[in-house]
Amino acid sequence: MQIKTLTVVGVGLLGGSVALAARRRNAAAQIIGVDPCPGVLDRARARGLVDEATPHLSEGVRQADLVIFCTPVDRIAGQVLAAALSCRPGTLLTDVGSTKAAIVREVRAELPGHITFIGGHPLAGSEKNGPENASPDLFKDRLVVLTPTHDAPSALLQRLSDFWQRLGARVRLMSPEEHDEALALTSHLPHLLASALAGLLPPELAELTATGFRDTTRLASGLPQLWEAIFLSNRDPLLQVMEQLESRLRLFCQALRNGDPRELHDLLLEGKVARDALNS
Amino acid sequence: MQIKTLTVVGVGLLGGSVALAARRRNAAAQIIGVDPCPGVLDRARARGLVDEATPHLSEGVRQADLVIFCTPVDRIAGQVLAAALSCRPGTLLTDVGSTKAAIVREVRAELPGHITFIGGHPLAGSEKNGPENASPDLFKDRLVVLTPTHDAPSALLQRLSDFWQRLGARVRLMSPEEHDEALALTSHLPHLLASALAGLLPPELAELTATGFRDTTRLASGLPQLWEAIFLSNRDPLLQVMEQLESRLRLFCQALRNGDPRELHDLLLEGKVARDALNS
Repeated sequence: MQIKTLTVVGVGLLGGSVALAARRRNAAAQIIGVDPCPGVLDRARARGLVDEATPHLSEGVRQADLVIFCTPVDRIAGQVLAAALSCRPGTLLTDVGSTKAAIVREVRAELPGHITFIGGHPLAGSEKNGPENASPDLFKDRLVVLTPTHDAPSALLQRLSDFWQRLGARVRLMSPEEHDEALALTSHLPHLLASALAGLLPPELAELTATGFRDTTRLASGLPQLWEAIFLSNRDPLLQVMEQLESRLRLFCQALRNGDPRELHDLLLEGKVARDALNS
Repeated sequence: MQIKTLTVVGVGLLGGSVALAARRRNAAAQIIGVDPCPGVLDRARARGLVDEATPHLSEGVRQADLVIFCTPVDRIAGQVLAAALSCRPGTLLTDVGSTKAAIVREVRAELPGHITFIGGHPLAGSEKNGPENASPDLFKDRLVVLTPTHDAPSALLQRLSDFWQRLGARVRLMSPEEHDEALALTSHLPHLLASALAGLLPPELAELTATGFRDTTRLASGLPQLWEAIFLSNRDPLLQVMEQLESRLRLFCQALRNGDPRELHDLLLEGKVARDALNS
């Protein structure tokens, strides 16, 4: 079923891609963009991402059937609660934040009963940013995790699931906590490692990097302000997987110090088997 | 100047690519492939990589003007010394090994005076392997590090440098030790990290990985037997950069534990600046 009015809050790379994908795939009849930055709204309009644009959240959500928050994770809960004051009863609110437990907890504590919020996270993105890098195929064949609480009306959950599938994505339901623990390992730790490794490179060694270093550190080009917020909002699970990594690095160190090819082989083979299984 | 007879020892991805590039760019009149594995020689011949092929090192190097060893780093020195017994005086031997100090040291201690060995390392490769994945453009616009000792005849050094440039590469001279310290950070540590991270992934979380995890761990698909030998032959420099990384990870942990967005921001920004400077 097509959404009548879709409001996208935060028209950057993700928000712009949601708008563009929804338009190309007829998932929404009308698309309103909300962004505090006039330059971003101008660029979004110039690319035809939105039908209407406003810097005012209350104005942008008033007619919406579905509002999707594509803003940094430390802003989402506050914006959802602010928007709820201006929404019509029955409006469905969702987000694309990289962490879910803190957002869902904060929203749940204060959201009025006539408005529904269902947390979401499309496992798609880019180290690029801004509406000029938006892509209508960003979500194609990607997984979107939804984290409904048990009181979410099933008709609205179905509607949100349909929306994402119309954008080309697969949908999986998880609890917010289960999501955050998994993503600490599959997304936040890789980002942190890429950044830590890149941060060790002195400029004079740049010439001695090849595709290996570049691929391994690609994520380090992400915006620090987005990622510091993600790390902090998922602190405990992230610290936990950092400890797991540290243990594994210690095994490598030990095998190296002992000059033990057998142990190194076993460690490298486990990594290869896990990586080869991802098939790409 | 064209090489008359080029012998490639080890006709896998790298050796096959040297042969293919040399043929396409007329860098050698005749190319002989040496490999102990009959299947590899058959596939190399089938792709037209070599004019002649033999499993016997002594036979393959007898007529050579240039011999290039594209075998695992723990085999190269022994093979160079063995080949020297069958080479004509004046033959130039080189390699493509990922570490240089141990190989150069071992070769230098025993090489007869009428044969020259100059260590080499093209900063190019792939997590794929075998002659079927050889590419004539593998070295195009890539850096090749040569590590001549002070007694290398300058005419032969020039010849080797010309050869690589003909294959599309840029050439830089470094000492073996300087090379190994740099590559510990720019190549061996990224490989180790990619493997350690991939090794943490339980199969049931594979679905929750996206391009970030996949890029960061791409190197983990490399062959364990190649990389355990590289790690062991560059043990001390690698342990040193692992310590640097550990310190940096501790800073991230500390900032996380303290809930300090400022400190996280600074760490992430340093990584971004270093990575953005690589421009790709």
